Amino acid sequence: MGRIVQKFGGTSVADVDRIRHVATLVKRQLDQGDQVAVVVSAMAGVTNGLVDLVRRIAPVHDAHEYDAVVATGECVTSGLTALALQELGIPARSWHAWQIPFRTDDAHGRARILGIDTDTLEARLAEGQVPVVAGFQGLGTDGRTTTLGRGGSDITAVALAAALKADRCDIYTDVDGVYTTDPRIVAKARKLDRITYEEMLEMASQGAKVLHTRSVELAMNQRVRLQVLSSFTGASGTMVVDEDEIVEHQVVSGIAYSRDEAKITVIKIADRPGVAARLFGPLAEAGINVDMIVQGASEDGKTADLTFTVVKGDADRALKAVNALKGDLGFAAVVHDASVVKISVIGVGMRSHAGVAAKMFQALADRGINLQAISTSEIKISVLVAEEYTELAIRALHAAYGLDAA
Amino acid sequence: MGRIVQKFGGTSVADVDRIRHVATLVKRQLDQGDQVAVVVSAMAGVTNGLVDLVRRIAPVHDAHEYDAVVATGECVTSGLTALALQELGIPARSWHAWQIPFRTDDAHGRARILGIDTDTLEARLAEGQVPVVAGFQGLGTDGRTTTLGRGGSDITAVALAAALKADRCDIYTDVDGVYTTDPRIVAKARKLDRITYEEMLEMASQGAKVLHTRSVELAMNQRVRLQVLSSFTGASGTMVVDEDEIVEHQVVSGIAYSRDEAKITVIKIADRPGVAARLFGPLAEAGINVDMIVQGASEDGKTADLTFTVVKGDADRALKAVNALKGDLGFAAVVHDASVVKISVIGVGMRSHAGVAAKMFQALADRGINLQAISTSEIKISVLVAEEYTELAIRALHAAYGLDAA
Repeated sequence: MGRIVQKFGGTSVADVDRIRHVATLVKRQLDQGDQVAVVVSAMAGVTNGLVDLVRRIAPVHDAHEYDAVVATGECVTSGLTALALQELGIPARSWHAWQIPFRTDDAHGRARILGIDTDTLEARLAEGQVPVVAGFQGLGTDGRTTTLGRGGSDITAVALAAALKADRCDIYTDVDGVYTTDPRIVAKARKLDRITYEEMLEMASQGAKVLHTRSVELAMNQRVRLQVLSSFTGASGTMVVDEDEIVEHQVVSGIAYSRDEAKITVIKIADRPGVAARLFGPLAEAGINVDMIVQGASEDGKTADLTFTVVKGDADRALKAVNALKGDLGFAAVVHDASVVKISVIGVGMRSHAGVAAKMFQALADRGINLQAISTSEIKISVLVAEEYTELAIRALHAAYGLDAA
Repeated sequence: MGRIVQKFGGTSVADVDRIRHVATLVKRQLDQGDQVAVVVSAMAGVTNGLVDLVRRIAPVHDAHEYDAVVATGECVTSGLTALALQELGIPARSWHAWQIPFRTDDAHGRARILGIDTDTLEARLAEGQVPVVAGFQGLGTDGRTTTLGRGGSDITAVALAAALKADRCDIYTDVDGVYTTDPRIVAKARKLDRITYEEMLEMASQGAKVLHTRSVELAMNQRVRLQVLSSFTGASGTMVVDEDEIVEHQVVSGIAYSRDEAKITVIKIADRPGVAARLFGPLAEAGINVDMIVQGASEDGKTADLTFTVVKGDADRALKAVNALKGDLGFAAVVHDASVVKISVIGVGMRSHAGVAAKMFQALADRGINLQAISTSEIKISVLVAEEYTELAIRALHAAYGLDAA
């Protein structure tokens, strides 16, 4: 007998029929003799509708009230899902964060989990009851409802799986697993049976949308075995596991891309020690994350061009911050380009294989694609290219690393 | 400086614009130097939508989960209303039942209030903060969210006004007060400036929909001064007050009607002691409320016809219960008629005036309207007539008692 946490996302509980179907998926797991705890998101579209109401009333709003309003979507689905389970003769009840309690700090809108009191849930699981926990929400130390931010219900599920020492946390969604790359771009993309936490984390941070980085990070730190699978097909999905569970690695497991990049180039900035610190210090203070950084070669020995990327939403603030330094740093100009895409090849196999980067650069050069920036980590190589090459570049790399399905 | 509880119904918080308008009504009260606590219903249509989801998933459902789902509508509006107040520079925060706590028993779906912990709310009011309380909901002794049943948010408001010893409880709705009768039927109907608790209670139980009996009863018992007024017009409404606050009474204050009646006649039932008890006992045991009862004269000295009314929704069950007694009681037949309406004239002035009933019967007889049943209380006379006479009868009575506006 195992213990499984099943999490169902917004499209999986989008309407009454989908919720009934979710109940059958829970039943299927119970019929295997497992204990099951369920975590649900709000019905697809509901949270956005609530956020919209909040923004229309108060464009700049009190995060306490934002949380009080938007957390209600999950309260609704947890109750409805408990009812659907009861209809199948399964003892079930809904749990809102304050009832468990699922405790967080007071950072409303992006709360951090402090702890989950599992005594009552454990007792109910032992009695055969299925707890249906409202995802995305917590109880702050201020006694008010908090929300966990983007990917919140996944985080709820992973944290609950860790607290309950579950054997697995199944993340049900509308795709049937993690793919070698986006199947909308590469028809020959393959579903991965397994992927390591580290690879999944890089995939998520480099643009893959199936899981949010924070939930993968939490799963990795708490050693929660994650499965990503579809609530629509019923097929087995992708397991996210420890590296030592995978016997033989592909050199490259997947290719991610992100269109959410803006490139900023500071032209003819003094080429001397300390300049980079004086440029990036103020950006960091403004809360702007700088991703890739490339310093061009100095032609005159005195100045060089410096290029870096930020997410598109931060571009205006970054430009403003850099321009404010002009008098101090004495560069010639700042230009910016949002028509770029970041493409990343990811694989733990890179650690033990040479030539991975060379193969990437060659494949792109063969298609005449210019690299505007490069960054690497132990298991990832990212390049910045003009947006118009997105599909061409991804297809070329997918083939080059032997990822195409037969 | 006074203290006012303002309650806003579903149409008053139906959308973002209406919620903004509600905030201005709160501000207007604060600007008069009063402390204000707000109670809100769910946005119009939201509760029905949630009830519909519950029923589609589970036609016969666990009342705990029903409450968990349907109580969320008020959580949303309390947050949104707090935000709208903050936008006007007013310190405000939402309160859900479990946070106060607003304690009830565990009768989910129709919970009774046990008590309201007001210490924190008192402290916030003293600081000038406006509490915006989610109506309709409570915290059961089982630690779960309950709902109070029909008219729930009015009950929340009255109970809160009592607990906070408020000077007045203003019930904002989409009509501008209590009328002498339904203005859709009698164009000359007048808004009442004042009405006694007893009259309001009779109006509500006899079919007037502006307030639910349970909230009026609570207000009467707790001596909470109620005002019914419109959130749309901003005009002063109708005060519901103690009888001694009204110097001169109309003999009749208002005329109510209810189409929700079904008439059941037991033909040729034995005319001997104990028969009525054996007939109505089983109905009471089945939870069916019998309203009007008329025993016809016995023609043969042995049997008579017995007529009574129940609400339309109970008619089928009542017929079944009566038919089951046929062998025991030996009546000839049971017939039923749902094409009836109950019309009631109400006024505390009746106590000191003779001839009120005679005037009613004469006015109806003059129009050729036959009375199928009559019942009276100290401050009310009700008659049952054929449904087709509804408007004619009400207009005749409105004129006969001098209620028509000049």
